[in-house]
Amino acid sequence: MNVLLQIDFPYEGPFGEEMTEAFAPLAQSIMQESGLIWKIWTENRETKESGGVYLFEDMASAEAYLTMHTARLESFGIRGIRSKLFAVNTPLSRLTGAMV
Amino acid sequence: MNVLLQIDFPYEGPFGEEMTEAFAPLAQSIMQESGLIWKIWTENRETKESGGVYLFEDMASAEAYLTMHTARLESFGIRGIRSKLFAVNTPLSRLTGAMV
Repeated sequence: MNVLLQIDFPYEGPFGEEMTEAFAPLAQSIMQESGLIWKIWTENRETKESGGVYLFEDMASAEAYLTMHTARLESFGIRGIRSKLFAVNTPLSRLTGAMV
Repeated sequence: MNVLLQIDFPYEGPFGEEMTEAFAPLAQSIMQESGLIWKIWTENRETKESGGVYLFEDMASAEAYLTMHTARLESFGIRGIRSKLFAVNTPLSRLTGAMV
C-alpha cells in the first residue's frame, strides 16, 4: 500500500529558478532514499511557505524519511514544520487520473 | 505552471474498500472538473483524517475547485478543513521522479 507524506513550513525563499539551483543537489540525494517513489516540490511566494508531497512504497519508509528530513529542515533553521501521513486510496485515486 | 492543492480534515470513515464504494460516483464527477490533472485520495484510520492532493493546470482552476469543494465538504457536515495552495517547482520535482 502506497503512503503519502505531506510536509509544509514557513519559508523565506529562494523561490522559482533560484530555489531550483539551490536545491538541485539535495533533490538528487532525495531520489536515492529507500522506498521513495516520487517527491513533488511545492512553493508559495505569496504566503511564504514551502514543502513537499511524497509518495512512498510503505509506511515504514515514509516514517523513517520524515524523522530524518524533519531533523534536516530544523538544522537549516526551519521551524513550524507540519507533516501528515496518509494511506493512499488507490482505486479512488486511479478513478481521478493519478498513477499511484 | 502546475498548482498543487492539499486538503485534509477530520473524518470518521468509512475507510478502505468501504470508502472506495461510497465515493466512486463522486470520483467520476471530480475527474470532469476544469483544469484538474489528477487527485490522490488520502485516508488515515488511526488519526481519523482524510483528504486529497490535487494537481491542477493553473491557479484559477485550483482556486475555483477549492471554493466549490469546501462548500461541498461542509454540506457533508465536515468541519476543520485545512487547505493549502502551492506552485509546483517542476525542475526539482522531475529530479525526484514526479511527472508534473
